[in-house]
Amino acid sequence: MMTQAEDSPKRVERDPLGPIEVPADAYYGAQTARAIANFPISGVPIGHFPIFIRALGQVKKATAIANARLGDLPKATAEAICAACDDVIAGRLDQAFPIDVFQGGAGTSTNMNANEVIANRALELLGFARGRYEVIHPNNDVNLSQSTNDVYPTAIRLAVLFSYGALKGAVARLADEFQQRGDEFADVIKLGRTQLQDAVPMTLGQEFKAFASTLREDVARLDDLSVHFLDVNLGGTAIGTGINAAPEYQAVAVEELAKLTGLKLVPATDLIEACWDTGAFVLFSGMLKRTAVKLSKIANDLRLLSSGPRGGLAEINLPPLQPGSSIMPGKVNPVAPEVVNQVAFQVIGADLAVTLAAEAGQLQLNVMEPVIAYNLLNSITLLTNATDVLREKCVAGLTANRERCRQHLEASTAVATALTPFIGYERAAELAKEVLTSGRSIREVLEEAPGLDPEMIERTSDPVILTKPRRVKPSGQPAPGVLSEL
Amino acid sequence: MMTQAEDSPKRVERDPLGPIEVPADAYYGAQTARAIANFPISGVPIGHFPIFIRALGQVKKATAIANARLGDLPKATAEAICAACDDVIAGRLDQAFPIDVFQGGAGTSTNMNANEVIANRALELLGFARGRYEVIHPNNDVNLSQSTNDVYPTAIRLAVLFSYGALKGAVARLADEFQQRGDEFADVIKLGRTQLQDAVPMTLGQEFKAFASTLREDVARLDDLSVHFLDVNLGGTAIGTGINAAPEYQAVAVEELAKLTGLKLVPATDLIEACWDTGAFVLFSGMLKRTAVKLSKIANDLRLLSSGPRGGLAEINLPPLQPGSSIMPGKVNPVAPEVVNQVAFQVIGADLAVTLAAEAGQLQLNVMEPVIAYNLLNSITLLTNATDVLREKCVAGLTANRERCRQHLEASTAVATALTPFIGYERAAELAKEVLTSGRSIREVLEEAPGLDPEMIERTSDPVILTKPRRVKPSGQPAPGVLSEL
Amino acid sequence: MMTQAEDSPKRVERDPLGPIEVPADAYYGAQTARAIANFPISGVPIGHFPIFIRALGQVKKATAIANARLGDLPKATAEAICAACDDVIAGRLDQAFPIDVFQGGAGTSTNMNANEVIANRALELLGFARGRYEVIHPNNDVNLSQSTNDVYPTAIRLAVLFSYGALKGAVARLADEFQQRGDEFADVIKLGRTQLQDAVPMTLGQEFKAFASTLREDVARLDDLSVHFLDVNLGGTAIGTGINAAPEYQAVAVEELAKLTGLKLVPATDLIEACWDTGAFVLFSGMLKRTAVKLSKIANDLRLLSSGPRGGLAEINLPPLQPGSSIMPGKVNPVAPEVVNQVAFQVIGADLAVTLAAEAGQLQLNVMEPVIAYNLLNSITLLTNATDVLREKCVAGLTANRERCRQHLEASTAVATALTPFIGYERAAELAKEVLTSGRSIREVLEEAPGLDPEMIERTSDPVILTKPRRVKPSGQPAPGVLSEL
Amino acid sequence: MMTQAEDSPKRVERDPLGPIEVPADAYYGAQTARAIANFPISGVPIGHFPIFIRALGQVKKATAIANARLGDLPKATAEAICAACDDVIAGRLDQAFPIDVFQGGAGTSTNMNANEVIANRALELLGFARGRYEVIHPNNDVNLSQSTNDVYPTAIRLAVLFSYGALKGAVARLADEFQQRGDEFADVIKLGRTQLQDAVPMTLGQEFKAFASTLREDVARLDDLSVHFLDVNLGGTAIGTGINAAPEYQAVAVEELAKLTGLKLVPATDLIEACWDTGAFVLFSGMLKRTAVKLSKIANDLRLLSSGPRGGLAEINLPPLQPGSSIMPGKVNPVAPEVVNQVAFQVIGADLAVTLAAEAGQLQLNVMEPVIAYNLLNSITLLTNATDVLREKCVAGLTANRERCRQHLEASTAVATALTPFIGYERAAELAKEVLTSGRSIREVLEEAPGLDPEMIERTSDPVILTKPRRVKPSGQPAPGVLSEL
Repeated sequence: MMTQAEDSPKRVERDPLGPIEVPADAYYGAQTARAIANFPISGVPIGHFPIFIRALGQVKKATAIANARLGDLPKATAEAICAACDDVIAGRLDQAFPIDVFQGGAGTSTNMNANEVIANRALELLGFARGRYEVIHPNNDVNLSQSTNDVYPTAIRLAVLFSYGALKGAVARLADEFQQRGDEFADVIKLGRTQLQDAVPMTLGQEFKAFASTLREDVARLDDLSVHFLDVNLGGTAIGTGINAAPEYQAVAVEELAKLTGLKLVPATDLIEACWDTGAFVLFSGMLKRTAVKLSKIANDLRLLSSGPRGGLAEINLPPLQPGSSIMPGKVNPVAPEVVNQVAFQVIGADLAVTLAAEAGQLQLNVMEPVIAYNLLNSITLLTNATDVLREKCVAGLTANRERCRQHLEASTAVATALTPFIGYERAAELAKEVLTSGRSIREVLEEAPGLDPEMIERTSDPVILTKPRRVKPSGQPAPGVLSEL
Repeated sequence: MMTQAEDSPKRVERDPLGPIEVPADAYYGAQTARAIANFPISGVPIGHFPIFIRALGQVKKATAIANARLGDLPKATAEAICAACDDVIAGRLDQAFPIDVFQGGAGTSTNMNANEVIANRALELLGFARGRYEVIHPNNDVNLSQSTNDVYPTAIRLAVLFSYGALKGAVARLADEFQQRGDEFADVIKLGRTQLQDAVPMTLGQEFKAFASTLREDVARLDDLSVHFLDVNLGGTAIGTGINAAPEYQAVAVEELAKLTGLKLVPATDLIEACWDTGAFVLFSGMLKRTAVKLSKIANDLRLLSSGPRGGLAEINLPPLQPGSSIMPGKVNPVAPEVVNQVAFQVIGADLAVTLAAEAGQLQLNVMEPVIAYNLLNSITLLTNATDVLREKCVAGLTANRERCRQHLEASTAVATALTPFIGYERAAELAKEVLTSGRSIREVLEEAPGLDPEMIERTSDPVILTKPRRVKPSGQPAPGVLSEL
Repeated sequence: MMTQAEDSPKRVERDPLGPIEVPADAYYGAQTARAIANFPISGVPIGHFPIFIRALGQVKKATAIANARLGDLPKATAEAICAACDDVIAGRLDQAFPIDVFQGGAGTSTNMNANEVIANRALELLGFARGRYEVIHPNNDVNLSQSTNDVYPTAIRLAVLFSYGALKGAVARLADEFQQRGDEFADVIKLGRTQLQDAVPMTLGQEFKAFASTLREDVARLDDLSVHFLDVNLGGTAIGTGINAAPEYQAVAVEELAKLTGLKLVPATDLIEACWDTGAFVLFSGMLKRTAVKLSKIANDLRLLSSGPRGGLAEINLPPLQPGSSIMPGKVNPVAPEVVNQVAFQVIGADLAVTLAAEAGQLQLNVMEPVIAYNLLNSITLLTNATDVLREKCVAGLTANRERCRQHLEASTAVATALTPFIGYERAAELAKEVLTSGRSIREVLEEAPGLDPEMIERTSDPVILTKPRRVKPSGQPAPGVLSEL
Repeated sequence: MMTQAEDSPKRVERDPLGPIEVPADAYYGAQTARAIANFPISGVPIGHFPIFIRALGQVKKATAIANARLGDLPKATAEAICAACDDVIAGRLDQAFPIDVFQGGAGTSTNMNANEVIANRALELLGFARGRYEVIHPNNDVNLSQSTNDVYPTAIRLAVLFSYGALKGAVARLADEFQQRGDEFADVIKLGRTQLQDAVPMTLGQEFKAFASTLREDVARLDDLSVHFLDVNLGGTAIGTGINAAPEYQAVAVEELAKLTGLKLVPATDLIEACWDTGAFVLFSGMLKRTAVKLSKIANDLRLLSSGPRGGLAEINLPPLQPGSSIMPGKVNPVAPEVVNQVAFQVIGADLAVTLAAEAGQLQLNVMEPVIAYNLLNSITLLTNATDVLREKCVAGLTANRERCRQHLEASTAVATALTPFIGYERAAELAKEVLTSGRSIREVLEEAPGLDPEMIERTSDPVILTKPRRVKPSGQPAPGVLSEL
């Protein structure tokens, strides 16, 4: 995937390990070239996540401005760097980020990739040849006052902040779609089920609005938890002591980054801790897991409710998306919910990878951040896409089988529960049992049962009434219990 | 564990499945007896978590009061039920809750266990024999206006709210203890490490204060997330439609429960959703996982820093708690951090069990709530105990090896980083390399290096200065870069 | 749980950390007392797993015999130790093992608990007072030629070997029970379902025999993988170099242990590796996870197939075990499958804890073995119990709803698949669609469809025939395809 | 990733859902086009795993041959299909498989993708235009006697069998490399460590050979477990009943597939079970997890042992692969082990996704197989690549710091253990303590200790001797214990 034609022209660069060949026209340099060779792991390049490359460009630009403001970087150099960063931010150089997302070095290769690309692009803008690092140097200039260990986690945080918005939007839109179905189905009376067993009456509208409600909570919760990413460790440099940065640098750099990104970024208060801590990632990943769990539960329900068409519940119809079988003609499967389930499983697995990586931090750094970044960004992408597919391809075209809903309810003993306040749990249980063993309808059984008040039967037989709380006894007075009589 | 003497006296109770023997003096009744027989799984009874039994008692009391206020339960009955609930709340009846924590039925057995115990204790208080349910009935009276499906999740939420406070306290105390060590070690200069490799100078105080900082974040976060448990579905009854509850009941019951518990409880807005949703559990479990991950990382660091005593880092000493080996005399091991690691692994595993259970909810209910409750409460207990052990047995008595800390720093090339702003990355790298290959100290190498300014050497050689940001160039003016000269 | 009356009589023991009080009548000694104080974590004592205590006793006895055979332990001492070990093996001293299952120290506390109990019991048998370690010493005599690091993993392996047999038996019995149901249901024709959608005909017997088949595979696989536990590292002592053991010791000790246990134990070939490797645990735990996954899938199927009774599939009936609801009279829930699901989730979570612990091994030892041992033994117990509950309480009394099974099949388009070889996929799909939109039966639709051969209709309409492979075209000759005609 | 130029020429195809446009030159057809539109999830196409496409081609070819042998497919048709399959098998049509790896439908889209590509390629070979399905039909001809539900799992099994060999080879080569280092380091005496604390002497050779041993076990175990993939459900068709396949078909098709692949394939005995069972995947994924755990443990050890260079253990040197820091000149990091850790975390997370998917199987099928296939194949790839990187880039060039190894050992009290048989555990512990508190060497302390036999000191001071078992007392006679004297 990252192969280069063997015979393309090369230039030679040097780094502390010695000389190494680089494609002559590559924006990247020696250290990127080493990383390409060192990590032939997954074939997925970091440039696969443009949102992350953009974030990295913003961090680099903000630090250049801060360094210039503090008088630590010549103005001309800073301007050239900023112009190069603008290209990175605009996505024009995504192809220049070919290192594998799986990489050792805690992101150093990624940071150096950015430093090299920005230096070379800046050189180019100024009319210099690539590799003229004595003019603009990847480390001494582009990386000035910085370390991978503050730049890289800051960029991951920005990337999550930028990308979770898309997920939030997708989840909110799906909630709205469910709400609409809920409104449409508000008068579809049906059987509620607990433990897959017939329970009590409800409406299909209630069932679908609950999906809307549960997803809206997640929209709010994603917002709540994303806030913690605003706290960035930029300025901590190598281990959080701020070595090689000016005392004013942290405040200025974060201020500039906030300006650039439009985010209310906050400088970390304990930079030592912020250098190794991955708590915000773990918690947010746990939140993604929660959204995945909810989507999977909803997908399971849609599959159950649409099961059949003849040998299942068949209370709803999902729009057919594709023929369901290579052998069974006419079969249509719930493929949209099914892919949602699978994405949910992947996200739950990814949360575990994030957890393991977080636990593996040691002393002043968590070297496993690349696998954390990969999984967070990938999970957000998968969830966003799956949520959109579920909405567009499934929920938007979903219809109700009103007749079937009513049949299930009427065949059941669901109203028996409503009798309890009148005749007690045991008697109601006996009547329900009689319905099930006799095969008769509960209405029939009730009408023949001795001593049952016809008004009471009437009051318990309208399922619409039973889908809401109601005052059981007109008087609001307790039945004269045994105790009161004593 | 829950065996009863075979020949103890019995009484016979009936439930809809028929007659069943119960120990004559048991507060529990028929349905509890069936559940004991049905679930011989783990041997851990629900009474193992007194905080949960207490919560269940409070829910039962609040609903009795609410029913009485609304005129649905005779006053005398309500008073007897409340008195019995007081015994449950006080922990006097914990032994009467013998059902296994692993149980089918979505908590119905647990709820019926409470209903039966409360009914029989109330009967006893009134001078009636056990089983006289025509006087006070487990379902018709104690469970009036309720379902397992609103009572049980509400009780779990209360139990988590009650118990997470202990964890929060333990974590806060551990943070304070780390802060104290941090203050004591504020002047212990040492080598910071990234990727287990020598990095740059820091103080041992900074290292330990970071542990305090990271734990304090978790104290705050536990509070943030616990808020979601205040939202309870009491009043939803069977599936959230509120069947068999009066229209005013939800508000009154939640109000009474808030009064009883002192918690700012809020009635769920979408009761249908709240009946099956387990999102708050999943997120809080993810938060417990995060705390576990942080504790495990800290435990790993303590073990690394205390490794040795001769063949390891040995920068700190953990207090010896027990002989470390059955065969190796004089060996002392970091057993407190080691048990913290293991508890962390257990909690991470428990979070997975919670996740799987949450995903398995179907339609109007999540039947897997018992395993969710067990794992949440167990994880909170394990984490609380392990946190206390780490503080009391380890951090409180922990000391620094100042000499060793200094030696590691001085032998390293850590100050080379500070040279970069003066001589550039490549030159600094060369000098560092020379130190490592020659075996000489960096001081020696610097002093002999041609063209290095003695003042600069001085400014980069005081490690105390290097543990903070500093202005590199007195003038605050950028070195006249190549670009400026153009 | 392990509290001792504060004012009970005490004796004072010493270990390298100094003097410590021990209950006067305790078999255990100083190091156990320290461990009790150090690990107040879960409240579950190691004696909770008698099978593990027994295994530990066997290892201690085998090593005493080996030491005596090699002339390294005086015969009288060895005999007394062996007699004490017999008490441990017989389970008479389980109460003397009170240390928490969560413990630091890689099992040293557990090993020393055994050494102390055996020493004191041996002293008692010889008429000496407890603590007279100059006569029989926990380390010098009971632990001779041993280290925790070979004794403890060996004992865990034995414990797993002893206990997995119970699980295997339970799984095999459940398979047999499913086979019996399968035989009973061999003639119950029903609708097979893929993706919860109507598929093609099958028998309920086929469905249930598949459960038997899948479980039988696991019986075989549990056997396959248990074999790796026969490879023990006894003789490696502290780190696998065999320090303080005679050259002949490994072979002799393993031989004696094999004799004692009746197991075909094998000495590890690379003792250094065997000292830290936990691969056999990880793989076996993965196998337990597989069994859990299968049981959970089966439980899900049983819950689906028994869903209803009126608003679900209701193709089978599970025996009612307890009333299903505190509010809904007459409801009966599938509580046995539900508890199986929950146990499965717990086992999957436990596998993760084992995995994390295994990954945390460092250098010459895996210090996290206690949490591995706990989870393996606990998972085996939970799975065994849940499997037995499923069989006894559910599968044994399970019945078929033959009528319902047939109705689902007849109402469906399941036989359309069988038409494909005659009329092609598209035409068959059209007919199926017509059935579903018209609401007529497939039989009706076929009979009216133009150009369909009545014999073909007959041949595709007998569902019994369709539950097996069959030759579609009598001649066995391909339909004259277009290509053949060219 | 799967975008097509909007304005490229199109042809119209039909499937049971109606007409749909397909790129005019695409080998795939209507159902593939629908699936592309339905599943815009991850951007990774199934063609990303050529080994799987090849397996699918082989299954299709084998079934075509079987159908022809049984007279169910005209010879000319079969020959054209086989020729098209040969192109698929050779990898010439990988680009024609653009459907996302995340897909609903249990693999139906993948199977139909193959059916359509093979049909169209066969048509092309015969000189027909694409879409002339009345000549060769994707379902009626290419998919004859098949269903996705037997073809797809069979192809996954083949793909795993083909690809695990590469992993096995990589692991075996890494083991060999470790063995070589072990041989080179056989005389490097060093300090063994348990729980990161100084333990007893060993050689660096022993340490490295243990890595070889542990990996060789995994080579054997991968072989053991791969065997279960030889058991294929081809012939079961839709749900395992073999509907629409001739009675002889299963045997013939599996025989042909075995011939084609060179694998000893076995027909599943219970095809119903084999249709939904994913046990072999779960267990193999658990085995991959085990290999990941071992590699991660080894990577951790390499990072620990090479920590420093001045402030760590520094007993070994890893070859420098790239500059270690953007800010710290001269720093070199263990990037190869670090990427191994991250891959291990990913594989452990993937195992969880596989587990979740396996648990989600329902009734006659596991619809989640696509996510299982993706994770298994991806994990194998990641592990193979990471293993190769670790060997080539790290272990091959790894060297020992002999001097440092000796220093650690000599500074420690490691030989104290060897004194125990002579002077007892307590006395040895006292001497060790004295060494540690006085700062003197153990040799010095021993020589001054009263009553120690010089010969004994000599015998316990040679660390080489202490790296193996040895007879402690020349006589082989036990010390006259107190008991013997009684």
